[in-house]
Amino acid sequence: MAFFREAEKEGLVDAHYERLSALDAAFLEIETPSSHMHVGMALLFEAGPLTRNDGGLDIAPVRRFVASRIERVPRYRQRLQLVPLQKHPVWVDDEGFNINYHVRHTALPRPGSEEQLKQLVGQICSQKLDRHRPLWEMWFVEGLADGRFALVGKVHHCMMDGASGVDMMAALLRFDAEVPEIAEPEPWSPRPAPNRSELLSGELRRQSGRARSVFERFMQMRDDPQRALDSLKDAASNVLSTIGSGVVPASPTPLNPSQIGGYRRFDYAELPLPEAKRIKRALGGTVNDVVLATVAGALRSYLHDKHVDVASLDFRVLMPVNARNGRDTGLGNRVSVMLSRLPLEEADAARRLTKVTELTGEAKRSGQHQGAELVEELSDLTGTVLISQSMRLATRIRSYNLVVTNVPGPPMPLYLLGAKLEATYPVVPLYLNQALGVAVFSYADKLFIGLNADFDRLEDLELLPGLFEQAFAELGRAATATEAATDAATDAETEAETEADRRF
Amino acid sequence: MAFFREAEKEGLVDAHYERLSALDAAFLEIETPSSHMHVGMALLFEAGPLTRNDGGLDIAPVRRFVASRIERVPRYRQRLQLVPLQKHPVWVDDEGFNINYHVRHTALPRPGSEEQLKQLVGQICSQKLDRHRPLWEMWFVEGLADGRFALVGKVHHCMMDGASGVDMMAALLRFDAEVPEIAEPEPWSPRPAPNRSELLSGELRRQSGRARSVFERFMQMRDDPQRALDSLKDAASNVLSTIGSGVVPASPTPLNPSQIGGYRRFDYAELPLPEAKRIKRALGGTVNDVVLATVAGALRSYLHDKHVDVASLDFRVLMPVNARNGRDTGLGNRVSVMLSRLPLEEADAARRLTKVTELTGEAKRSGQHQGAELVEELSDLTGTVLISQSMRLATRIRSYNLVVTNVPGPPMPLYLLGAKLEATYPVVPLYLNQALGVAVFSYADKLFIGLNADFDRLEDLELLPGLFEQAFAELGRAATATEAATDAATDAETEAETEADRRF
Repeated sequence: MAFFREAEKEGLVDAHYERLSALDAAFLEIETPSSHMHVGMALLFEAGPLTRNDGGLDIAPVRRFVASRIERVPRYRQRLQLVPLQKHPVWVDDEGFNINYHVRHTALPRPGSEEQLKQLVGQICSQKLDRHRPLWEMWFVEGLADGRFALVGKVHHCMMDGASGVDMMAALLRFDAEVPEIAEPEPWSPRPAPNRSELLSGELRRQSGRARSVFERFMQMRDDPQRALDSLKDAASNVLSTIGSGVVPASPTPLNPSQIGGYRRFDYAELPLPEAKRIKRALGGTVNDVVLATVAGALRSYLHDKHVDVASLDFRVLMPVNARNGRDTGLGNRVSVMLSRLPLEEADAARRLTKVTELTGEAKRSGQHQGAELVEELSDLTGTVLISQSMRLATRIRSYNLVVTNVPGPPMPLYLLGAKLEATYPVVPLYLNQALGVAVFSYADKLFIGLNADFDRLEDLELLPGLFEQAFAELGRAATATEAATDAATDAETEAETEADRRF
Repeated sequence: MAFFREAEKEGLVDAHYERLSALDAAFLEIETPSSHMHVGMALLFEAGPLTRNDGGLDIAPVRRFVASRIERVPRYRQRLQLVPLQKHPVWVDDEGFNINYHVRHTALPRPGSEEQLKQLVGQICSQKLDRHRPLWEMWFVEGLADGRFALVGKVHHCMMDGASGVDMMAALLRFDAEVPEIAEPEPWSPRPAPNRSELLSGELRRQSGRARSVFERFMQMRDDPQRALDSLKDAASNVLSTIGSGVVPASPTPLNPSQIGGYRRFDYAELPLPEAKRIKRALGGTVNDVVLATVAGALRSYLHDKHVDVASLDFRVLMPVNARNGRDTGLGNRVSVMLSRLPLEEADAARRLTKVTELTGEAKRSGQHQGAELVEELSDLTGTVLISQSMRLATRIRSYNLVVTNVPGPPMPLYLLGAKLEATYPVVPLYLNQALGVAVFSYADKLFIGLNADFDRLEDLELLPGLFEQAFAELGRAATATEAATDAATDAETEAETEADRRF
């Protein structure tokens, strides 16, 4: 370390840092005291070999294990630093990194009910991450009534979206119950952080590169002006169709107060994945459409009981879509969005799913994705202002009512130091006027639904899990009815064929 | 409620609010993301009748009890609101008050060691209070190894200082082990909060009253110009002697980094009060001087081990002094300060106490108190700017190294719903460049010392409790030696007298 410092002074060693993308930085910029921009995850484990004799959780090996695996995700030992003047954030190694700050050990009070666990998740997710440190926390929770333990994780959205979250889990979890040898963590020397002038000169280099790219675009336009214009027009209209959908605001609902508070209430539900697949086979659409139809059914009941006129609602959901391709496995956000109306007016479950499938199909065809990606590309040219402004704008003009994330997770069981992962409930952040957020994560043969809500504005959040199960069961019954009808038709057909056979 | 709202619209009911004093408001103003302005308290109780069959803590009656007693401390159901334009805060009833937000139930992980409790206190005190709600939290903690439970309390400094903190405890605690009947909480209707125009017109009335008081002062000056001038000069020089002591900054030490972080580390110690009294009787000074001599001895060792040249230190402590008189029993801050050098250079315990006694005597005689009170009075005339600026200034120019608070608590045992209070460790907030704060609270026959510290800058905080005990034991030995010498002298005198008697 001392060597590096000396070397740095002499200018012998390059300063190490990495610039945040415009989208990643936007998640820092739109954070407010009541709108936290971290994503969370509550994982439930069988206690397994991590149980101590006194019934507690053996935290020491867990902490050593996290420390040994952290090398695979370098971002977990990096903190933010700001480029002088311009104030754009970059990642630098955290010289004061202390694993005990990030990996915490806590317990539920007795009896250790699920309700108490949910309360704890709400409390943990109500607190901002410290911007002077690597932007993550892991809370290991013992004292669950049935001997299980929980892991409540928190990571800032600027550091990873849902899809790259799987990468972090992958570093800790394995596909078999064998307890891995805990490697002695490699001695780590933080690489020298850049000083003021290094940051400024780096930014200067970047800006001149940008100038070249603008120049190249200009040249391209000169060579084939019509093509360039067309692509610009396409792009512009796509941007409009995404953000601009909000020019006519979505309907006002109790889920969209003018401002939420900073304290959170958390609840969860789970649905069987094979059943979701059966429903989609019988009634059409994708698993994601089945999830959305379930959300629509649950919210239809919930809002109806609050005397909202669901028949006349223009209720819209925003869904992040993974925009990663095969090559692109890095951390950070490579996410785009899809905006779709949800048919809360539809009383019949099967017809609700059909409508959802039509609506999401339209959204996909309209090329919204590319629109949102262009916003991101433009932002890399213009700084984070455009993207964070458009995010704020989309919320303020109520261009949507609800965020629903749906991230596919691993289909087979996972283990942490031999303890089997049983459930994994995701937590999606809430924006300015969003009192509820729905996150779905599939793991093994289940869909785990995490419901993150404003503490004051959704005091009856506990009603929602039941409504989700009910709406899903309705879809199941509709699927069974359709299957029966199809079977009957097939039987009739077969019979008719047999009859025909007989004729000849 | 509906009635009140209607009445308010009609202008039939006065809006209810109370303006914060300049000093109270200053504690809001000087709060930064890393410098939290809440005071804390960790109380340890024998579990007693609050233990459930499963070993947990029966939270339901505790919560009902707090709810029933809260009427006695109305501030606990009030939140902040800002006067438009001027932005000065006032207290208004919290319409959304929810006891479950404020009274929380948690547990230590096994084995439930004191170290784990200290970690939890550090975590709880690292988080800001939500400014949109009444500014307090009570965390009831079960799972301590010996069957006890803890109460970690947090109250914003703008709402109560150490002395009025006793009033809050008084509402919950009683002098006997009898379990009181828990009264059904009175139905509570929040009184209508003022609207914009009410706040503005109220402020206008206040300002004109203020103008009158300035006018009266002026008339008084005309009648007796010399007396008025003298009192102004006295006041001004007192202000200078308090804040101005910092014009020559105190010595730099590892306890005073240029900036602390927002995360806290907590530790504690306890000293027997009768022994402190024996020391003061034998060696002179007050119990507070004995505490300061102990602090001086402990920090002398601590800093010496860090290769600080303690012989040449100008080390200064700032001590809040209760400025309440008998009549004045309200909430809020009625606190003044005393600034004194601590003789860390003195190796001999007895001489250290003598020097402390001289130094605090000087500080008292110099009339610093009145100086600080004048700052407060001036601030009520000029707004909070002067007081918060002078607080910030005093810290920035390092006019002191350490805050030591010493609040006398009740001398007899107290009980919460029949559970005996065993220990009570106070937590004092840390200012900008203060990495350590020492708070002392006397209860029953003990002095309880709470050590609040910056998590990163005092990684070895755990060394301090031992050093406190050691420094106190040194004073005890010095007292014993003096007592022995006095006894010998008295014996010699008695013998001489007897001799003299014999002569006649």
